Amino acid sequence: MAESTDDRMQKIVSLCKRRGFVFQSSEIYGGLRSAYDYGPMGVELKRNLMNEWWRSMVHSREDIVGLDASIIMHSDVWKNSGHLANFSDPLVDCKVCGERFRADKAPKAEPGSPVVMTMADKGRAKAALEKVQALHEGAPEDIKRDGKTLLGATVTDRGYVCTNCSSPFLSEERQFNLMFRTSLGPVDPVAAVIDTVKAAVAAGDDEKAVRAKVEATMDDSSVYLRPETAQAMFVNFLNVQQSTGMKVPFGIAQMGKSFRNEVKVEHFIFRSCEFEQMEMEYFVEPGEGPKMLQYWKDTRLGWWKSLGIREENLRLREHEEDEQAHYSDGCYDVEYAFPWGWDELEGIASRTDYDLNAHSKGSGKKLQYFDPQKQDPETGKNGWRYLPHVIEPAAGATRGLLAVLCDAYDEEPGDADGKGARTVLRLHPRLAPIKVAVLPLVKKDGMPELAREIVQKFYAAGINAKLDEQHAIGKRYARHDEIGTPYAITVDNDTLQDGSVTLRMRDDRSQKRIPLTTAVDVVTQALSQA
Amino acid sequence: MAESTDDRMQKIVSLCKRRGFVFQSSEIYGGLRSAYDYGPMGVELKRNLMNEWWRSMVHSREDIVGLDASIIMHSDVWKNSGHLANFSDPLVDCKVCGERFRADKAPKAEPGSPVVMTMADKGRAKAALEKVQALHEGAPEDIKRDGKTLLGATVTDRGYVCTNCSSPFLSEERQFNLMFRTSLGPVDPVAAVIDTVKAAVAAGDDEKAVRAKVEATMDDSSVYLRPETAQAMFVNFLNVQQSTGMKVPFGIAQMGKSFRNEVKVEHFIFRSCEFEQMEMEYFVEPGEGPKMLQYWKDTRLGWWKSLGIREENLRLREHEEDEQAHYSDGCYDVEYAFPWGWDELEGIASRTDYDLNAHSKGSGKKLQYFDPQKQDPETGKNGWRYLPHVIEPAAGATRGLLAVLCDAYDEEPGDADGKGARTVLRLHPRLAPIKVAVLPLVKKDGMPELAREIVQKFYAAGINAKLDEQHAIGKRYARHDEIGTPYAITVDNDTLQDGSVTLRMRDDRSQKRIPLTTAVDVVTQALSQA
Repeated sequence: MAESTDDRMQKIVSLCKRRGFVFQSSEIYGGLRSAYDYGPMGVELKRNLMNEWWRSMVHSREDIVGLDASIIMHSDVWKNSGHLANFSDPLVDCKVCGERFRADKAPKAEPGSPVVMTMADKGRAKAALEKVQALHEGAPEDIKRDGKTLLGATVTDRGYVCTNCSSPFLSEERQFNLMFRTSLGPVDPVAAVIDTVKAAVAAGDDEKAVRAKVEATMDDSSVYLRPETAQAMFVNFLNVQQSTGMKVPFGIAQMGKSFRNEVKVEHFIFRSCEFEQMEMEYFVEPGEGPKMLQYWKDTRLGWWKSLGIREENLRLREHEEDEQAHYSDGCYDVEYAFPWGWDELEGIASRTDYDLNAHSKGSGKKLQYFDPQKQDPETGKNGWRYLPHVIEPAAGATRGLLAVLCDAYDEEPGDADGKGARTVLRLHPRLAPIKVAVLPLVKKDGMPELAREIVQKFYAAGINAKLDEQHAIGKRYARHDEIGTPYAITVDNDTLQDGSVTLRMRDDRSQKRIPLTTAVDVVTQALSQA
Repeated sequence: MAESTDDRMQKIVSLCKRRGFVFQSSEIYGGLRSAYDYGPMGVELKRNLMNEWWRSMVHSREDIVGLDASIIMHSDVWKNSGHLANFSDPLVDCKVCGERFRADKAPKAEPGSPVVMTMADKGRAKAALEKVQALHEGAPEDIKRDGKTLLGATVTDRGYVCTNCSSPFLSEERQFNLMFRTSLGPVDPVAAVIDTVKAAVAAGDDEKAVRAKVEATMDDSSVYLRPETAQAMFVNFLNVQQSTGMKVPFGIAQMGKSFRNEVKVEHFIFRSCEFEQMEMEYFVEPGEGPKMLQYWKDTRLGWWKSLGIREENLRLREHEEDEQAHYSDGCYDVEYAFPWGWDELEGIASRTDYDLNAHSKGSGKKLQYFDPQKQDPETGKNGWRYLPHVIEPAAGATRGLLAVLCDAYDEEPGDADGKGARTVLRLHPRLAPIKVAVLPLVKKDGMPELAREIVQKFYAAGINAKLDEQHAIGKRYARHDEIGTPYAITVDNDTLQDGSVTLRMRDDRSQKRIPLTTAVDVVTQALSQA
């Protein structure tokens, strides 16, 4: 029975809110556009996912070390990385309906072909016609209204129309930088900007000159929220290499928040303005890039599989030449089959020496590596000083979390009458927010006290357990199925008699009796083998 | 032998850079004012510290759950919390030397008393005299120059003078809000501000009116970086309580970055613009606040001690009445004896129902709790709906890290000739970035291969080990002493013969031989007992 994409996403979003995985940020104030808060279950799931990454990248490899750099970075970093000039989307406003959209994402349309502009209703169509008639471009006099549509317009040489109303009457494209700018230091940038505009107006400056003066005024105190964590690894290359003595090939790994003022946010937490990344820059000898690209694309795909994500929902896609940055000599995406289609989880790119070179030039510091064992290929002399090349596996933690949730979400229909129907999150036990629920059958006869003792034993073993004594036992099992708790231990009358408890497995709802005294060992064992 | 405060801090800062704990942000571009990057050792130490907090707060208690909210929050959050109006410092500019300083932090001076203004040199004093003579306030005609000083000025009614040159010629105080503002959404706030100023100037508005119009224009898209993590727990109170079914008393814990545009940054990472917090809001019945405040102040002090920080360097200080926020009915600081004196690590405050009340009023959503078991004290009826009161233990993670480093930093002078002198970081083993160094005595005879096998076994046991084969063994021990590695295992010739290795302890440099096969168990055991 096919289920629509929207339905499935809607159910996941709804479970996320109901069970404390993800809330809209600032929800009681109407919600903030595209920022999300991770609730009691979400924060655990995210920590588990990111800790798995750290473990695989940093804590089980000799050749990679960690970094945790600041989010606010110097504007020179972004000037030299190219983000200030190029990290932007082309924005266009519709002169008829006011829609603001990305020109590069608008569907292509044949220049000269007729378009039917469509408004929400007749009234809006009348108003739209007046607007069109007031314009001085195209051939507005030919436009006629028919109900809620306007006929007679044609696609311009731009080759696209408004994504909302299909109007070809559009503003110029302008570049919209995706970085968040703020001001650092005890200055009042607003006062300085006002003074600058006043002076520029008094001097008779034109629009462009005023803007340039304002930008110059703001530049003094402007800093940016990082749009990616990667640049910190490049600007810290020497600090990290020299303080640790790492030898090429080696990597620097970082996890943390990044910020992009996305024009179009979409698919719940998939594309949001505040998100979390897990990035690693792997520094290699010139010439070693292509080989290491192969290594890392396979390694990273394997990691996503190791989280229990189904193989058929994961794939590697090699970038077409026209998708690649001009400095890149190879790039793969790890993609996941989201409810809306295949989309990116991680990019693995060969970045050559582009970044270290750009920051070397920009800062005047040579971000080089010296290998005393190697011969310089140019001079043939012993000792080779070079700019390392870089392979970058850059994963989305926020996207990873969504993929894990989508992959784990399951509904069982139950029998013909719907009896036994349930929603279950089949999370990998290592990712599950709570590893074991401890449930006293009833709130009396010492069962809660006994359950509490068991919980304490799990805490002592470093296993996140949860005592849950509200509602009937079936309802409690259902609740824990929905948050993906893999194991449940129930304390009942038999426990008081013979010291046994019920161990219930989330995935197949099977139950067995085990001695209370072995509960921690059994769960520890199960977790380590999962 | 007394050592100056600056010397000791300087040594710690130097070790932090040399060994990869802390670097200045964007250092290759001249460094960013007061933001820091945590290097390979720093990121591990910070993770260990924050994981300890999470373990003690969330993973070993039934009554506290976690949260991880967005950094960018809606401006209404800060309007209603009071931060937009009140989270500011009074700033003053000196009209003579240009110094910008906080009026409330300037030393008090008796109005009417004479002050000697002091410039850096004669030339600057001459220029300063000219500036003073051009002013139209005070009694500038009486001022005389004597070398690099100016005589004849007196303290004004403000009761303070310039903190740099002692001039009483100062600008008006203005409130400087410490929150970082940025703009969310596909708008161009700069263009909008320019248009607004132009229109206001054309309309003949005065300075205040122009400013008001500009602020109104910016308000549409303004959002703020959170200056504390706490507000997210209040605005998410209902979401968290309803999704988890937690019963009062319960807490919501959050760790993460906060941002304050501090006028005066100081003491390395102690007061910086980007920093990390570990905050918990504990919700209790009205009337229970004072009792829980006592409980939490003791619990939190105990936690800092459990990290191995020396008792004599920790203290609780109760706030004086005039230090407390108007809504608070009690507050304690956990303080640490930093090299510059006692300073705050954590504040434990009773906040009453101030925050939930403010956000209930601001949002129109009742952030209340319903207890069906209790009688409403006003009506006497069963079921009590109330605004919980809050106890907040708010700890600085960045500050905690600095305290841990200061407390662990030690120098041993060695013998009379200085032989055996060393610097050692006596970090608690649970906090140490690397738990065990594995050192092949020489790079031959299979020792590196054997060492590598041991490292893999530590990885498999979840213990962060580090293979280190560069330089002489003594130098390697010294390096690991400086980064606080508690245990070192050396593979030498005897290992090849009899399968034994040397276990060396950081703190007393004692060594013993143990069988290679027991290495992981011995270290695991030592770590669990530390």
